Amino acid sequence: MSGRSHARYRENDVVSLVRRQFGGRSRLLLRGIGDDAAVFAPSEASELWVVTTDLLLENIHFKREWMTPRQLGYKALAVNLSDIAAMGALPRFYCVSMGIPRGISMQWLTRFYQGLDSVARPSRTVLIGGDLSGSRRGIQISIAVLGESSGKRIVYRSGGKPGDFLYVTGVLGRSAAGLHLLKRGRLSGRNAHERDALASHRRPQPRCKVGAWLARKGYARAMMDLSDGLSVDLPRLCAESGTGAEILLSRLPTFEFSRRWGVNPRELALHGGEDYELLFAVAPNRAADLEREYPLSFPRITKFGKLRERRGVVCRDETVSGSFPIPAKGFDHFGG
Amino acid sequence: MSGRSHARYRENDVVSLVRRQFGGRSRLLLRGIGDDAAVFAPSEASELWVVTTDLLLENIHFKREWMTPRQLGYKALAVNLSDIAAMGALPRFYCVSMGIPRGISMQWLTRFYQGLDSVARPSRTVLIGGDLSGSRRGIQISIAVLGESSGKRIVYRSGGKPGDFLYVTGVLGRSAAGLHLLKRGRLSGRNAHERDALASHRRPQPRCKVGAWLARKGYARAMMDLSDGLSVDLPRLCAESGTGAEILLSRLPTFEFSRRWGVNPRELALHGGEDYELLFAVAPNRAADLEREYPLSFPRITKFGKLRERRGVVCRDETVSGSFPIPAKGFDHFGG
Repeated sequence: MSGRSHARYRENDVVSLVRRQFGGRSRLLLRGIGDDAAVFAPSEASELWVVTTDLLLENIHFKREWMTPRQLGYKALAVNLSDIAAMGALPRFYCVSMGIPRGISMQWLTRFYQGLDSVARPSRTVLIGGDLSGSRRGIQISIAVLGESSGKRIVYRSGGKPGDFLYVTGVLGRSAAGLHLLKRGRLSGRNAHERDALASHRRPQPRCKVGAWLARKGYARAMMDLSDGLSVDLPRLCAESGTGAEILLSRLPTFEFSRRWGVNPRELALHGGEDYELLFAVAPNRAADLEREYPLSFPRITKFGKLRERRGVVCRDETVSGSFPIPAKGFDHFGG
Repeated sequence: MSGRSHARYRENDVVSLVRRQFGGRSRLLLRGIGDDAAVFAPSEASELWVVTTDLLLENIHFKREWMTPRQLGYKALAVNLSDIAAMGALPRFYCVSMGIPRGISMQWLTRFYQGLDSVARPSRTVLIGGDLSGSRRGIQISIAVLGESSGKRIVYRSGGKPGDFLYVTGVLGRSAAGLHLLKRGRLSGRNAHERDALASHRRPQPRCKVGAWLARKGYARAMMDLSDGLSVDLPRLCAESGTGAEILLSRLPTFEFSRRWGVNPRELALHGGEDYELLFAVAPNRAADLEREYPLSFPRITKFGKLRERRGVVCRDETVSGSFPIPAKGFDHFGG
């Protein structure tokens, strides 16, 4: 079960219920509900397999006016590949099911599938099935992706230990900055920064190569992708690892240009969702090796905090002594 | 891509487009779009794996008033297990994603999951993940099931040869008879036959054991499950096998009691959907062995026709000389 939620009551309540009462066991199952993807071991296979599914609903997860069908197809698959990347696995196959309302043309559908294909092809992910149906209202998209481990190594959310350094790939809050522009009616960017932000929101790059590399080399011992924002996702990683964490606010790789648009880059980095960057924990004695060996051709990684024994996620800031909780979203006197 | 469709334009057009333009290849992929499930071979695994997905939308595929949440959960998973059975595979894992509108209580959800569980547990299928979200309108359910072959044998739709005998499991048209009762407001049966018909519609039995047995023993060389009715599904099997077929109308295992309710049992057997029985083709020289060896504890099987070289599906009837096309649905002078 993954965590992108807009439910009236708390999704976590349902997930807990399901996990507790209906999760089962099997000799082939290594991990069921509770991570970015489930993990199973086909009998005698040389690799482990992971599976993740996502449901995308019109006017809940996307607005047709804000995205072309191609962009929608791209994003629908990209966010699932991000879940596979977060396990350190490589995507292999995907299925797409759709509820299609009146008014959607064959041309629209063709472009939607072209969008899927544009993210599938470079990552060598093959479309193998799905289900199509009419819909009374709105588009419904359900995607399932199967991935394969690289050298039988899978990285769970639960592998972190106190003292581990926390890293993220890329930049945080850039997708939320793009969403901010869209909400204000800016559907295309007037300059490179606006285009950058809009592209981050519409075309997030699943970090498949980075994830598989980190897993294969054994650097990441806990990992997940950032879909709901660091302030929501980091506590999830901590809960699974049985740790707390400390964030160094000044180290966060923020998207500074968004400041010009009247938003706080640090706030977006903490609370903005849909970055689809990888968050991972590295043993302290391996951090120097990681930073030396990390390929230059990969997106940047930034060390921004560490796991700690004591529960709870706290922040540190040069301008304030001691630690404090993550500043709430929209808090007036938010620093940075 | 499976075929339960209610789309405005023809689903087949979209499936053809997708299959032609966007289906890809992989050394691990044995069968992509075009059968009841996709088939892949994890590296060095001792078995093949199959995957199928389905999207169920409120007021398109089901009505909340006609089914309890438990019945809905049961059916949502059962129809997917039927696809796995149709490949001759055994279900192992499933994922459930849901869009949940306001007004759905935790109790409703619990019962829905109990329904899923009531079909999963006897078949040892384990819930491993999914995705939950709010929904603006209506319930959306997406299910993905992973299954494993039994002895590396998978049965495709495409394996039939001219001369093969055609068999079905169980009774045809009973689910449609149940739907007929529901449409007339009969939500519970007044006698055993009505209850039987309603149960067939609400609680179809996926034929997992039969499917796996037929595959393992090598009796079925083409197989699919009947979701849209024999008149729609048999031509699909023929198209994939490159054959035609001949149906002996008097041999169809019809649900005769439905006659009392003003419907034609033979018409329902041909055109009624949602039976979820297995349709399979057996080489002529193996039919006697099959009938001798077929376990008594399994649901009955009936030989009702054969595949032929010449394309098209035709019928034969004792009362009419020669062959004729499948009588259209609702045709006044329909025999039987």
